[in-house]
Amino acid sequence: MKKLWSGRFTQKTSGTVESFTESISFDKKLWKHDIKGSTAHARMLARQRIITKKEADAIVAGLQQISVSIENGSFPFSSELEDIHMNIESALTENIGPAGKKLHTARSRNDQVAVDLRLYLKDEMKKIVQLLKALQRTFVRLAEKNKGAVMPGYTHLQRAQPVLLGHHLLAYTAMFQRDRERFQDCLKRTDVCPLGACALSGTSLPTDRAYTAKLLGFREVSGNSIDSVSDRDFALEFLSCAAITMMHLSRLAEELILWSTEEFRFIEMSDRFTTGSSIMPQKKNPDVAELMRGKTGRVYGNLVALLTLMKGLPLAYNRDMQEDKLPVFDSVETLEACLEVLDGMLQDLKFNTERLSLTSGEGYSTATDIAEYLVRKGVPFREAHEITGRIVLSCISRNIPLTGLSLKELSAFSPKISGDIIPVLDPAESVRARTSFGGTSPSEVRRQINYFKKLLK
Amino acid sequence: MKKLWSGRFTQKTSGTVESFTESISFDKKLWKHDIKGSTAHARMLARQRIITKKEADAIVAGLQQISVSIENGSFPFSSELEDIHMNIESALTENIGPAGKKLHTARSRNDQVAVDLRLYLKDEMKKIVQLLKALQRTFVRLAEKNKGAVMPGYTHLQRAQPVLLGHHLLAYTAMFQRDRERFQDCLKRTDVCPLGACALSGTSLPTDRAYTAKLLGFREVSGNSIDSVSDRDFALEFLSCAAITMMHLSRLAEELILWSTEEFRFIEMSDRFTTGSSIMPQKKNPDVAELMRGKTGRVYGNLVALLTLMKGLPLAYNRDMQEDKLPVFDSVETLEACLEVLDGMLQDLKFNTERLSLTSGEGYSTATDIAEYLVRKGVPFREAHEITGRIVLSCISRNIPLTGLSLKELSAFSPKISGDIIPVLDPAESVRARTSFGGTSPSEVRRQINYFKKLLK
Amino acid sequence: MKKLWSGRFTQKTSGTVESFTESISFDKKLWKHDIKGSTAHARMLARQRIITKKEADAIVAGLQQISVSIENGSFPFSSELEDIHMNIESALTENIGPAGKKLHTARSRNDQVAVDLRLYLKDEMKKIVQLLKALQRTFVRLAEKNKGAVMPGYTHLQRAQPVLLGHHLLAYTAMFQRDRERFQDCLKRTDVCPLGACALSGTSLPTDRAYTAKLLGFREVSGNSIDSVSDRDFALEFLSCAAITMMHLSRLAEELILWSTEEFRFIEMSDRFTTGSSIMPQKKNPDVAELMRGKTGRVYGNLVALLTLMKGLPLAYNRDMQEDKLPVFDSVETLEACLEVLDGMLQDLKFNTERLSLTSGEGYSTATDIAEYLVRKGVPFREAHEITGRIVLSCISRNIPLTGLSLKELSAFSPKISGDIIPVLDPAESVRARTSFGGTSPSEVRRQINYFKKLLK
Amino acid sequence: MKKLWSGRFTQKTSGTVESFTESISFDKKLWKHDIKGSTAHARMLARQRIITKKEADAIVAGLQQISVSIENGSFPFSSELEDIHMNIESALTENIGPAGKKLHTARSRNDQVAVDLRLYLKDEMKKIVQLLKALQRTFVRLAEKNKGAVMPGYTHLQRAQPVLLGHHLLAYTAMFQRDRERFQDCLKRTDVCPLGACALSGTSLPTDRAYTAKLLGFREVSGNSIDSVSDRDFALEFLSCAAITMMHLSRLAEELILWSTEEFRFIEMSDRFTTGSSIMPQKKNPDVAELMRGKTGRVYGNLVALLTLMKGLPLAYNRDMQEDKLPVFDSVETLEACLEVLDGMLQDLKFNTERLSLTSGEGYSTATDIAEYLVRKGVPFREAHEITGRIVLSCISRNIPLTGLSLKELSAFSPKISGDIIPVLDPAESVRARTSFGGTSPSEVRRQINYFKKLLK
Repeated sequence: MKKLWSGRFTQKTSGTVESFTESISFDKKLWKHDIKGSTAHARMLARQRIITKKEADAIVAGLQQISVSIENGSFPFSSELEDIHMNIESALTENIGPAGKKLHTARSRNDQVAVDLRLYLKDEMKKIVQLLKALQRTFVRLAEKNKGAVMPGYTHLQRAQPVLLGHHLLAYTAMFQRDRERFQDCLKRTDVCPLGACALSGTSLPTDRAYTAKLLGFREVSGNSIDSVSDRDFALEFLSCAAITMMHLSRLAEELILWSTEEFRFIEMSDRFTTGSSIMPQKKNPDVAELMRGKTGRVYGNLVALLTLMKGLPLAYNRDMQEDKLPVFDSVETLEACLEVLDGMLQDLKFNTERLSLTSGEGYSTATDIAEYLVRKGVPFREAHEITGRIVLSCISRNIPLTGLSLKELSAFSPKISGDIIPVLDPAESVRARTSFGGTSPSEVRRQINYFKKLLK
Repeated sequence: MKKLWSGRFTQKTSGTVESFTESISFDKKLWKHDIKGSTAHARMLARQRIITKKEADAIVAGLQQISVSIENGSFPFSSELEDIHMNIESALTENIGPAGKKLHTARSRNDQVAVDLRLYLKDEMKKIVQLLKALQRTFVRLAEKNKGAVMPGYTHLQRAQPVLLGHHLLAYTAMFQRDRERFQDCLKRTDVCPLGACALSGTSLPTDRAYTAKLLGFREVSGNSIDSVSDRDFALEFLSCAAITMMHLSRLAEELILWSTEEFRFIEMSDRFTTGSSIMPQKKNPDVAELMRGKTGRVYGNLVALLTLMKGLPLAYNRDMQEDKLPVFDSVETLEACLEVLDGMLQDLKFNTERLSLTSGEGYSTATDIAEYLVRKGVPFREAHEITGRIVLSCISRNIPLTGLSLKELSAFSPKISGDIIPVLDPAESVRARTSFGGTSPSEVRRQINYFKKLLK
Repeated sequence: MKKLWSGRFTQKTSGTVESFTESISFDKKLWKHDIKGSTAHARMLARQRIITKKEADAIVAGLQQISVSIENGSFPFSSELEDIHMNIESALTENIGPAGKKLHTARSRNDQVAVDLRLYLKDEMKKIVQLLKALQRTFVRLAEKNKGAVMPGYTHLQRAQPVLLGHHLLAYTAMFQRDRERFQDCLKRTDVCPLGACALSGTSLPTDRAYTAKLLGFREVSGNSIDSVSDRDFALEFLSCAAITMMHLSRLAEELILWSTEEFRFIEMSDRFTTGSSIMPQKKNPDVAELMRGKTGRVYGNLVALLTLMKGLPLAYNRDMQEDKLPVFDSVETLEACLEVLDGMLQDLKFNTERLSLTSGEGYSTATDIAEYLVRKGVPFREAHEITGRIVLSCISRNIPLTGLSLKELSAFSPKISGDIIPVLDPAESVRARTSFGGTSPSEVRRQINYFKKLLK
Repeated sequence: MKKLWSGRFTQKTSGTVESFTESISFDKKLWKHDIKGSTAHARMLARQRIITKKEADAIVAGLQQISVSIENGSFPFSSELEDIHMNIESALTENIGPAGKKLHTARSRNDQVAVDLRLYLKDEMKKIVQLLKALQRTFVRLAEKNKGAVMPGYTHLQRAQPVLLGHHLLAYTAMFQRDRERFQDCLKRTDVCPLGACALSGTSLPTDRAYTAKLLGFREVSGNSIDSVSDRDFALEFLSCAAITMMHLSRLAEELILWSTEEFRFIEMSDRFTTGSSIMPQKKNPDVAELMRGKTGRVYGNLVALLTLMKGLPLAYNRDMQEDKLPVFDSVETLEACLEVLDGMLQDLKFNTERLSLTSGEGYSTATDIAEYLVRKGVPFREAHEITGRIVLSCISRNIPLTGLSLKELSAFSPKISGDIIPVLDPAESVRARTSFGGTSPSEVRRQINYFKKLLK
């Protein structure tokens, strides 16, 4: 097959080069966006009388036909034709004749691939935003369902203070909210149409780029043709957002794995979302969470790949940039799969609220409450902290909980301690008392739930 | 010195542990923000009658005093006191007595360090946005000054089509515009006050977090206390933005280095912004640009460091997170230094417009113009492309430029070619003709300059 | 299809989980190694009388049959069967009956996948070492062919001193030599057999791990069963080696791209190894070199992916580790493709030795020679350096080369300068004089060529 | 102060450029190696009669003097003098007069900095290898001390099979063994002397590079001068090794953190190696382990930084490479600090062997033993696995351990089960039985201990 650019060449491309440089094996994923872009381009060319209305109609119909044949699997993708753009254009010309040869007027593969990737990412980021929203709703539902359950709150993976399970779950809702906002900001900057920038400098033909952009549903037309074809910021920003979201998922995964251990026993995952062992018959493994955690590396790696690729590239387009697609595609698919499978898994999750409640009182978790009690009685915080430290140490050495001390024993540590200390030692009471804004009290958790319910409507 | 948390401990911390865990050697950079945060916190405590007005006044005055002693270098930083928070609080109590012991009421180092880092990044991102703006202005000025100069536009580092130097320079202005917007979006999400989240669950004391946030100039109060202390999204998002900006700088650096070569000779850097060789007396090296390109790796590395750190951390605070500061500080300083030195260097830069213009016509750079000429004469683009390819090949084999062909020779390639082809072969004419939106024509470059001038006012 | 581990499970795995957790879509690449491992395992089991000789024969024949059906494309891979191990074992049992159910005795998928990946990497690293060797030979051949050609040597991309083209090319041979040695060291550590470590703790059955290892051609048996299944050092080390090699390729690619520019014109790539433009008919782009440079990011990203994945994983096997394969496979394929295509490209490369020689004398490239001349005359180096600096400056201001100065003018800079300075200013002479070990003189380049020729025999 | 290279320059370097390009603030760490290198260089110059013996003596004495003044803190480092090389050379000339101006004969900063960094890394890698060895010894000691203790072995963080604590600890000894070997291989490739390669092409002066290398204790002289100054493979390889070692430390850290939780309670860290909370008086946090885990990101980031930096750099030296030092220094210090503090912490660690033993029998951890028991009775493994799965499921549904089933109940699952199953259900027995090579049986653990004791002598 003759290369469309072979005019000045005297030798055939080497076979190894052909397979080294082809991108059709992966950029065929962009076929819909490529056809969409070409359709709009043809319409614009006709409107500007660069081609005739009849030619445009033939092109659009031909593209429609190709669309059908790709959809039904009969389209003959060829790596000799390098990429999705050439594959489609070649087929078009074969099908509709000379009019096909006019489609590439006033554009180049440089702006064409940029518009394709932007259309693709716009679609996928909208989907990701929806998946995040669905996940947030699931978290809010779980928080509401378990809002009464008290659990140990951790810092340094040491039990720190009792918190409401709902409060802990809503922390993830807050993370996903930021993720959504970040993707939406990225979407804004992706929603810019580069088509018509041509190779790098625009064209002398009387195009109307605003019209093409409008047909394609873009918010804006790119303002500098050199930048239009050499810019991959939108892909890098997408990968950064994806990496941060995956980081959130890895933290959740870590918790789900910990909570599934025999040692924690905070949750039980359903059989539908766990797998077994090829050798140990008793095992029920949190594989989904583990894989989610492992896939974090993959998305981080994709970000590094594209950052590395773009480093030090002179303007405008360089062929290195062909390698932008795989990390983007892989990250999109990884992230979407994680968000989807996670949502299902969470809906099947059972919390062992009894054990959560039991353990929430262990580990001297209400020590801070004693300190705050003393503060309310006028003891400076640092002294209150120290007194409480001594109380805890004494309990540890006697191997008893805080509630194991008599009031008399407690008062011996400070004359400020009297009978009203007793409720303070109760985890449920501790939680109830933390009514500061964003705190773990039932009222504050309720407020958060209402806030997100409204936001997620 | 006694640790402020030593109540329950029976043994002294090991010396190697002390130096392994200390952060004062780097987090002292946050002293201003720490004092600012403590001042606001004390005011809020007094307003809520958790401490007295008099105590608050003593605290604020004591902090002011510490501020002075840090500023004049007399403050005795101690690594035994671990971090900036403990160093300041200890000094405060030493200076003002018991009131100092009340400052840490209703807060924890977990929310304190989060608020410090956010205050720091807010300041620095505002500065970075200003530096980017200044750089954009310099680019616009350079573009305007050199707007008539024609240069070769490149793809694949091969001369592709003539463009205006101003057009090329404005591509960078467009990149920095996106950088600015990204930092501003990040700023929005950084502008959230975590103070008052305490260790992780809020407090039972009657704080007013909104008041503290207002005193500190935050736009918003964080809504979930667990998330407040375990969230480092704002730092990661900052590092992502910084990495993308550094990528832009690396591309510019690469071009400046290329253009400074004996082979390109497109620019001359001033002696003030180049350095010499310890062995080769004739050398004048573009070190600033090289270092800028090299420092890109540093900022990428910082992003990877923090992404790695956060991966898989269970909620809420973990000590790993202490390691968030160095990559952030280093990226801030690296980026600011690059932006500052670059601005100076650009102002001193001389473009060799004569050579730019000369080379813009070499390399068959107006071949696309011939193809577009044929399109205007009704030849389908693909045919036009092929005809032009043959013209170029013929010139190459005879080692002559396009203008070396007579009209008769040209017409032999296509009957559509007539006398009006002559101006098409002129690079200046080629540039003038590319009037499509965002194209390289003088009118479009003018439009871009006006657009940015208005935007950067 | 029933999962082989479904004994204790009461619910079917969810469909989304199945597709989320399957690895058959990519680990089928390991089929040959999996069958090889199973064959050796069965032989060992029989030898140790854990199964009968007859059962082992049936297993080996069955595996052979599966091998044939995979080879000819008729094997029905199923994602319900999760991975390559289960796919093959299931088919085996289906084909040969009960004996198949004995194959998984005294092993687990944990040690099985580890042995598969090690066998795979051993094969591929040996291939990579050969490809590197072939490439080194090509470089030596090019060096020998062009050994007389003088070219400008660069630092900071500024012409620094004349060097022999052969000398420059041999620098890459030296890099690839280190690459080879690194891969060989990695190979040594990969050549350790984990099979028989079972799930993590070994087995109570009387296996002979040394025998299995011997059958599989391993140098050593792993000594700690927990480590055996949780260790991926060999994969990380491979990825590190691959990243460093790709870095070398990216430097070479950068030079090939630079040298192909109109500005440098040091080389001409053949049509067979370049491609054209869809819009600019005159373009001949060094796409292969650009893609090679771009693919560097991909391999870096793969290294980051696996480093991230392994961070913080508790012992022993975790499902995260299933994600080790894709970055390894992708890096192997990327690196091999680059090495192969590069070798071809270099063989077709033409050096423009005339231009190289011409430019080698420009840019005051023999200035260091003047300084060394003065040193030989007893001038301290720093003074010699400064005197030469002044000579260069004077030439620059008059826009003449060093040879443009008369002897009288030269002597005015230092009384030590006399007639014997003339040959010193000649680039060819400069090169000839640099006879220090490893220097650029023809004799030293000859020595290097001989050294590598012997080494690469 | 006048720049030593200022001969051809007419304008002073800009102040911002000076502080942007200086490296003295960090490369002064190399002062010892720089002086060592210069001393050897001077000796060689004298031996080759390039300078006189008297001049060399003056230089060496002068360097010695500088060494003293740096040691005692009186040396006036100046950023105007850019780097450690120029600072020392300038001081030398000031102190000893004209002879100082001869030191830089036949070398350049390009080979000088390469030799300094290699000397530094050789020293530090030797130290790291010793620290790893010490750590291995500590692990072997711990393994020996606790060799009788049984604990739950984990996969997927689910209890899988009982193992010996000593076996688990020795897994880390095996990891550190590979780390040591990797550093030693890297050391081999670092032990190559680049000094004398000069700027890039060697010298016309009659140097003896082998002699300098010998004086400096190098194993080999670099063979290609261009490669000598543009090669940073040794630094990259070091960073790769460091990253893999940090990955190991992060896994250990994760386990120490998990084991310190209230939920696991497998270990108790001493007060000397834990820290407290500024707000929660009861907390005792595994900060050292957390920081170690967090610092993993830092070393990964350093590797990415240098890989990014080197990508696409044309030969030979480029100023970007000045940025190689910070990631190397930071990784050296981070790794050494981690290894040191860890060793101390482990020596203070107490294992809760009672709880380890207790939990080792929970979670149906001997299920695999039942399956292997059935295999020994002739049941094909897959059937044995399934039968055991059903036994486990039945226990789970009745909420009893495996030992809760009567022999009659057990036999109901398979007629092959008889009285000799009873010991099989005992974790201690399970461990004893796993005598396969590298397995967890006491005999195998003993073998490993002996192996390492001999190796570490």
